[in-house]
Amino acid sequence: MENCIFCKIIAGEISSTKIYEDDAVLAILDINPVNEGDTLVMPKKHYENMEALPEAELVALAKAVKKIGQALKNGLGISGYNVTLNNDPIAGQMIPHFHWHVIPRLSEDGLKLWPQRQYETTEDMEEAAKKIRTALE
Amino acid sequence: MENCIFCKIIAGEISSTKIYEDDAVLAILDINPVNEGDTLVMPKKHYENMEALPEAELVALAKAVKKIGQALKNGLGISGYNVTLNNDPIAGQMIPHFHWHVIPRLSEDGLKLWPQRQYETTEDMEEAAKKIRTALE
Repeated sequence: MENCIFCKIIAGEISSTKIYEDDAVLAILDINPVNEGDTLVMPKKHYENMEALPEAELVALAKAVKKIGQALKNGLGISGYNVTLNNDPIAGQMIPHFHWHVIPRLSEDGLKLWPQRQYETTEDMEEAAKKIRTALE
Repeated sequence: MENCIFCKIIAGEISSTKIYEDDAVLAILDINPVNEGDTLVMPKKHYENMEALPEAELVALAKAVKKIGQALKNGLGISGYNVTLNNDPIAGQMIPHFHWHVIPRLSEDGLKLWPQRQYETTEDMEEAAKKIRTALE
């Protein structure tokens, strides 16, 4: 897509540090990493978000993410990583071209997961579940 | 696996609020949600982390995550979500049974993504890339 920085990287119009590539997927280092080795895994075709992603790409991306996670462990000697997707601007998506982040973790990095809370009542929880289940039907 | 709380939920020995189920996957509400509707998506068989997950389960989970994301949007009227995996204890994994979090986002939730930084030099970046690429070979 015109004016998409990731499409330009995929087309070779903007340089990047490639990590992995197959027919459907490109993985590059994030130039603004959370931790060293932070890798972005994207479809070569332009899809804005998870909803737009066809099943073939969804599957190819999942396989690539798994490969890259293993390579981060083996290559960087780390013992774990996070995989994150910011799906849509409200979720922090900055570039409107679907991409997974694979983030190596270090014991001293000080990163904290988001705080969790509790449902006020079991009814509140059941009501949320009902809305989601209905949408799945 | 014995003493795995998710295996007990899957076996019906501990109650849960089910959202979605197929042959390979169970999705339930997180009782300690980041935001209302926070859903955990897990394989029915016990696999500790991404490295242990066979390809069939990896694919089934990816498809389920996509369905659930769409259902969170439609069912809860939200405009985006995060998908996260805490792979291994160093990454914040509390229960050693692989699971994706699908987290609905609200404009007023105040959640922040992890801070990003820069590689000190291009050589540092290239060195990290080389280690990961070598591990992929």
